[in-house]
Amino acid sequence: MLARMSERLARQLDFVLEIDRLKGVLRRTFLVDRSRNENSAEHSWHIALMAVLLAEYSAEPVDLARVVQMLLVHDVVEIDAGDTYVYDLEAYRDKEHRERQAAERLFGLLPSDQAADVRALWDEFEARTTPEARFANAVDRLQPLLHNFATEGAAWRQHGVRSEQVVSHNRHMAEGAPGLWDHARRLIEEAVARGYLAE
Amino acid sequence: MLARMSERLARQLDFVLEIDRLKGVLRRTFLVDRSRNENSAEHSWHIALMAVLLAEYSAEPVDLARVVQMLLVHDVVEIDAGDTYVYDLEAYRDKEHRERQAAERLFGLLPSDQAADVRALWDEFEARTTPEARFANAVDRLQPLLHNFATEGAAWRQHGVRSEQVVSHNRHMAEGAPGLWDHARRLIEEAVARGYLAE
Repeated sequence: MLARMSERLARQLDFVLEIDRLKGVLRRTFLVDRSRNENSAEHSWHIALMAVLLAEYSAEPVDLARVVQMLLVHDVVEIDAGDTYVYDLEAYRDKEHRERQAAERLFGLLPSDQAADVRALWDEFEARTTPEARFANAVDRLQPLLHNFATEGAAWRQHGVRSEQVVSHNRHMAEGAPGLWDHARRLIEEAVARGYLAE
Repeated sequence: MLARMSERLARQLDFVLEIDRLKGVLRRTFLVDRSRNENSAEHSWHIALMAVLLAEYSAEPVDLARVVQMLLVHDVVEIDAGDTYVYDLEAYRDKEHRERQAAERLFGLLPSDQAADVRALWDEFEARTTPEARFANAVDRLQPLLHNFATEGAAWRQHGVRSEQVVSHNRHMAEGAPGLWDHARRLIEEAVARGYLAE
């Protein structure tokens, strides 16, 4: 009976069911209530909605629909490649290779035109060379900072992260959203002052 | 130090942190791997990305950016009002009242222009009178059907749901996405044939 479905819809729905696994990929960040670690699917929802609400802080005018689509797909590769903690230098070494393989397999489940579209969104996000990608990256970086501050540095303290690492890994926020980076810098300073983050 | 932040940004970020609680609102639907119930934040991510990938099935041409924004905000009211199971008639009676109060409080955290924008998105989704809202609602209904089928009716069986209820609660999918409703109807028939869903 289900055989009556078109091959195109079958591929699209295979992908839809496969990406459900992103809900099981855990990040280092804690939820604001500290009840558990955040997963990458709910993180993606959060930053997509943040991009809508914070669009006015983009350094340049952006196609907001494209920003949101980038944020919705940018973590899907973690289903195969896992979430790589930005302060884990060892894991960062082969991150690119692992994620490229994941992109091949996962986006390849889709009909070829859509596989190419989604791959283009992901490549654009990673390359950070368009205004849309720079703003999307800024929002993606702001959210864990807000969570860390709200949880008194729960993830930072658990992993012994220092303020210079946070500044160095997030300073590209300034390119995408200078006003948000100003706020982030103040949060980082205040986090050090309050002992949430090591100097 | 944080006082240097503008009042506007402060309100926006209050909202951003408040909506983190949507990650703790559990739905009746199970994840595809059946490891746990799905939460409303990750559900919102899933359907927003589904809308992007399945836009070609919309009954009418739609502003996809608006569809996606509607789906990103449509469940936020559940932070106060809880997720109301579509087959729970008792809880459905005061759902509208509870959700309206939730919308007042939650969207009211935002600067007033954005509160009005987000409220308009939510009202539009609920009213289902625009092509965008009809398509968004169709995608919101398709996703739990796919999950129920993929989990051999885990949530349906747990709550004693019958096929006529599933058809009657989801038939408006036909207005937003007739091709997806055709597929959904075949899934429902097949679910009955396989014993995932009571006749």
